[in-house]
Amino acid sequence: MVTLSLFGAGRIGKIHAGNVARNSRARLKYVVDVDEAAAQALAQLHGAVVADAESVFADADVDAVIVASSTDTHKPLVEAACKAGKAVFCEKPVDLDSARVKEVVTAVEKAGVLFFVAFNRRFDPNFAALHKTLRAGRIGKVEQVIITSRDPGPPPASYIKVSGGLFRDMMIHDLDMARWLLAEEPTEVFAVGSCLVDPAIGQLGDVDTAAVTLTTASGAICQITNSRRAVYGYDQRIEVFGAGGMLRAGNRTDTTVEVSDGTGVITDKPMLFFLERYADAYRIELDHFLDCLEKKTTPLAGAEDGLRSLLLADAAAQSVKSGRPVKV
Amino acid sequence: MVTLSLFGAGRIGKIHAGNVARNSRARLKYVVDVDEAAAQALAQLHGAVVADAESVFADADVDAVIVASSTDTHKPLVEAACKAGKAVFCEKPVDLDSARVKEVVTAVEKAGVLFFVAFNRRFDPNFAALHKTLRAGRIGKVEQVIITSRDPGPPPASYIKVSGGLFRDMMIHDLDMARWLLAEEPTEVFAVGSCLVDPAIGQLGDVDTAAVTLTTASGAICQITNSRRAVYGYDQRIEVFGAGGMLRAGNRTDTTVEVSDGTGVITDKPMLFFLERYADAYRIELDHFLDCLEKKTTPLAGAEDGLRSLLLADAAAQSVKSGRPVKV
Amino acid sequence: MVTLSLFGAGRIGKIHAGNVARNSRARLKYVVDVDEAAAQALAQLHGAVVADAESVFADADVDAVIVASSTDTHKPLVEAACKAGKAVFCEKPVDLDSARVKEVVTAVEKAGVLFFVAFNRRFDPNFAALHKTLRAGRIGKVEQVIITSRDPGPPPASYIKVSGGLFRDMMIHDLDMARWLLAEEPTEVFAVGSCLVDPAIGQLGDVDTAAVTLTTASGAICQITNSRRAVYGYDQRIEVFGAGGMLRAGNRTDTTVEVSDGTGVITDKPMLFFLERYADAYRIELDHFLDCLEKKTTPLAGAEDGLRSLLLADAAAQSVKSGRPVKV
Amino acid sequence: MVTLSLFGAGRIGKIHAGNVARNSRARLKYVVDVDEAAAQALAQLHGAVVADAESVFADADVDAVIVASSTDTHKPLVEAACKAGKAVFCEKPVDLDSARVKEVVTAVEKAGVLFFVAFNRRFDPNFAALHKTLRAGRIGKVEQVIITSRDPGPPPASYIKVSGGLFRDMMIHDLDMARWLLAEEPTEVFAVGSCLVDPAIGQLGDVDTAAVTLTTASGAICQITNSRRAVYGYDQRIEVFGAGGMLRAGNRTDTTVEVSDGTGVITDKPMLFFLERYADAYRIELDHFLDCLEKKTTPLAGAEDGLRSLLLADAAAQSVKSGRPVKV
Repeated sequence: MVTLSLFGAGRIGKIHAGNVARNSRARLKYVVDVDEAAAQALAQLHGAVVADAESVFADADVDAVIVASSTDTHKPLVEAACKAGKAVFCEKPVDLDSARVKEVVTAVEKAGVLFFVAFNRRFDPNFAALHKTLRAGRIGKVEQVIITSRDPGPPPASYIKVSGGLFRDMMIHDLDMARWLLAEEPTEVFAVGSCLVDPAIGQLGDVDTAAVTLTTASGAICQITNSRRAVYGYDQRIEVFGAGGMLRAGNRTDTTVEVSDGTGVITDKPMLFFLERYADAYRIELDHFLDCLEKKTTPLAGAEDGLRSLLLADAAAQSVKSGRPVKV
Repeated sequence: MVTLSLFGAGRIGKIHAGNVARNSRARLKYVVDVDEAAAQALAQLHGAVVADAESVFADADVDAVIVASSTDTHKPLVEAACKAGKAVFCEKPVDLDSARVKEVVTAVEKAGVLFFVAFNRRFDPNFAALHKTLRAGRIGKVEQVIITSRDPGPPPASYIKVSGGLFRDMMIHDLDMARWLLAEEPTEVFAVGSCLVDPAIGQLGDVDTAAVTLTTASGAICQITNSRRAVYGYDQRIEVFGAGGMLRAGNRTDTTVEVSDGTGVITDKPMLFFLERYADAYRIELDHFLDCLEKKTTPLAGAEDGLRSLLLADAAAQSVKSGRPVKV
Repeated sequence: MVTLSLFGAGRIGKIHAGNVARNSRARLKYVVDVDEAAAQALAQLHGAVVADAESVFADADVDAVIVASSTDTHKPLVEAACKAGKAVFCEKPVDLDSARVKEVVTAVEKAGVLFFVAFNRRFDPNFAALHKTLRAGRIGKVEQVIITSRDPGPPPASYIKVSGGLFRDMMIHDLDMARWLLAEEPTEVFAVGSCLVDPAIGQLGDVDTAAVTLTTASGAICQITNSRRAVYGYDQRIEVFGAGGMLRAGNRTDTTVEVSDGTGVITDKPMLFFLERYADAYRIELDHFLDCLEKKTTPLAGAEDGLRSLLLADAAAQSVKSGRPVKV
Repeated sequence: MVTLSLFGAGRIGKIHAGNVARNSRARLKYVVDVDEAAAQALAQLHGAVVADAESVFADADVDAVIVASSTDTHKPLVEAACKAGKAVFCEKPVDLDSARVKEVVTAVEKAGVLFFVAFNRRFDPNFAALHKTLRAGRIGKVEQVIITSRDPGPPPASYIKVSGGLFRDMMIHDLDMARWLLAEEPTEVFAVGSCLVDPAIGQLGDVDTAAVTLTTASGAICQITNSRRAVYGYDQRIEVFGAGGMLRAGNRTDTTVEVSDGTGVITDKPMLFFLERYADAYRIELDHFLDCLEKKTTPLAGAEDGLRSLLLADAAAQSVKSGRPVKV
């Protein structure tokens, strides 16, 4: 039985807390949040107690911490965990500043603690099956990747302000998928971006519509499309093309119901948003983390992956500004 | 170059005339119809001339006749063709009375002329591919067949009156498909029927909604569903199940366009009706007839097939009346 | 918090125990099974204790019992629960003998306890959404229903022996779906059956391949297809047709991955079997049962539904024997 | 009845000749080709005669010419047609050199003859329906376009040599589709390209794998993917995204047959290549040309469209060389 503590009782923290509660291999001991009421409510729901960070790190019972608090708190918490020798399950992004992420990478390496960056999409059963089929050689070496990723609607301006911008906040997931699928580091990033969804986003200097082209040394090409709005739901699709064929992973729907009437044949929209689409992924990534702890294996995504995807996001943001491709 | 004459300048006659005109192996010499204006218009469109039946059968140039006139004229025309030694392309049903169809079978056998019954669905690329895959042994021996066949809307009462009823007019196609797919004669027919679409159909003693169960000596089972109305278009589907798996042939659509919006993901309805869905089948069946003529091969559907499907339709009609399964 | 006791620590009992454990509104107090080791293991896994039936019914703490033991024990357990005033969640079939089921119906009515028959498919998100759309009037009154239900492989002969036969064991689910969708009681049942999958099944006097036609007073028609084998997985589909169009609910797959190569475009098979396909349904039906307990509402499927589906299964079995349709 | 002459008796010339022969509004009078045997064979097949260019342009009977000869002959033939006052149906590309295309544009404008550039994809029923739905405002203004276009296999090196390279030969179709769908001229082109399919292509200085990003003044973004090889067939898909949703047009298949077995559910590959996929488009574009002639309307694609797509292709080729986006 692994004893965990959770930092962050917000939307994603609640997801992780629920998954811990339903997992027979783990128990949640502490919940930490600056919002005490939120911490209290979540702790009570799952039979945990509210604590401050110091007590958590001081408690020898605690095997690992889940860092799901606001992005700016990730670094100090991870460093404290390193010092205390606790394993870390860290929400993405590790930090919005690559210099700081590099310090995290160093701290983690030095401490030798287990460090997992929660790139949840690697655990989505659809993308995971695609990846497995790809790595099994089903279509040969990757030549082209097309990733489509659209949120159902834009977040509020207040969120945009602290998000690090579309590339670091939203596309970072797709950049991680690209790296994972290409199995080769992109060497160049070209990005274009527009503000077509919400003028408030543009006023904050951010874009809400974007496209990125990644190229690798071997000549593989990846195209990524992002939008902060899709009226038909959370659009999450991947296509990988190679000499032997093509692999696609499409959207999931709530049901398989199909209505045929005078207007056409109508099926379900994609699942609403990440809580629904990636519910399985969140559950499976926790299991993966517990596996790594038990079997002392390397997690599917570590600090280095967190750093590299951020560097690609930085390059994309820079490319939009400069109007030119950026070498990585 | 095969010289053809056409009896019947109606809806289906026009289809065949057009296909002859576009086929480089055949030419249309005569068009015969009691409606002279219709005959004239169609003949003119395709460079043919209007004639009466006697002249057609007397002309040594004529290799074959297409019988696409009203059902009651099929028998005398086929018999005249037999006498004149002309090959026959005969629209289904051969006749509504099985005793008369038996006389046609005998006449054809005696004359030794090529006789093709135009069961067009056997030439639909979808059903033909399914059949080919089935016969190639892909799923083993047939155990279950499910045929769905729905017209977009009911014909007028005037048509129903002379149609022979749903089983002889509409389901006869599905009964032929069932025989063709089962590769074994059904030994029992059970049918149920209702009038749910148009009360006028019920007043004429016919049904517009029906289901049939066929069983064979080896234990294979076929279920057929018919309705005279489907607001979403012409619904033409087949499923065949065996020890090795399942084959399905679905509806065709005009386009592959898909609209995703707030209501769902919307694709095209099935093609409107038989002229659209079976346009390829009509073209291909003519080619098949010309092949049989050139290579002196047996057509895919002959007089015996016309008779057997009618006997199944008769049995289905009788089953609805008696409320019991009928042995065939 | 509802306190539950479970009778039966077998395959389906384990499912229900797991769902209780993960449900924050319920707790599992006792597990009862003639196989003490099985009871012990399951109890331990979920923090419950092993007990005998008497203690369970005597414990005032126990609000409800889940009856998931062998079919022949259902009746005495339900009657004991009625006497003790406990609510009942009863696996299907209530019993294989309709006379005995009628006694259960009477006992339940007299005792006034909540009685839920676990027709899990009513809670499958796909079928539930189809039903909801249907009842909302989307396609008008039901005219035709087509239900396809195939197991991936046949059970062992030992199971067949005590199963009550294909109609009472397997098709009873489809008969319940038919009743639920038609919203009108079938008045006639016609069934055909063959032994095409496993000769051992035929030697026991049972069939493994079957088709049923149900008709109702209003003229609606339902066709059901069953097979004890489908190499491509658990095939669970429904089509409902009405004046306004068609509703279909198809199979679910593990992933949306699609492979395009030289052989075609290949997607996932349907989910393997009921544990996978109906995992959600089992979870949701427990929630429904808890809702009924809390809000004192009538369950979606009660003793009467258990009885009526059994009577239809009996009629189907009789129809196969007599070769004739059977009035219900 | 429109009288046409055909220049070019090769693969695409044969397609057009066949479509003229099957079109009741047009007749083919002359076939011209440097390969006399090819000209003779094609002329004979359709009842036309072989002639030289001079005779064709001198014949007052000839209403229009179809220019389907090698690309370098397009310009002189179009100019001769302009002089002779004949309408022109011109295969793409008009020429590989934009300066020469500009001269064609000028010549056509001056002569005032009808000039149609055969961008066949605008007439594909799938893409045409998508475009119509888009222009009808179904998803609002275009924000993102994703075009996937892959040939089943690379052409021989001899073809590559005279093709003008992937961007002018192959992607020019996609660039035309992009312009047509965006309804706004791209202002910037960024392209990347690799040689992953056939080293012989790389040795000729060309690429066989490419991706392009187009941006417009309003901020719309289009991504295009090309490969000279797709083992699963001719991959031709379009997605258009706007504030109101998404439109997609997928590949067409030969049949709707679906095989379910132990390996999955297998459907047809996309149609093999352009002759199959765009058979309808070739037929419909001829009809469109005849309509324009009869009704004196402007064709859907004119000389200016030929020029603008070539300029985009030039910009893409230049971008690959310079490694930078190119303003148009």
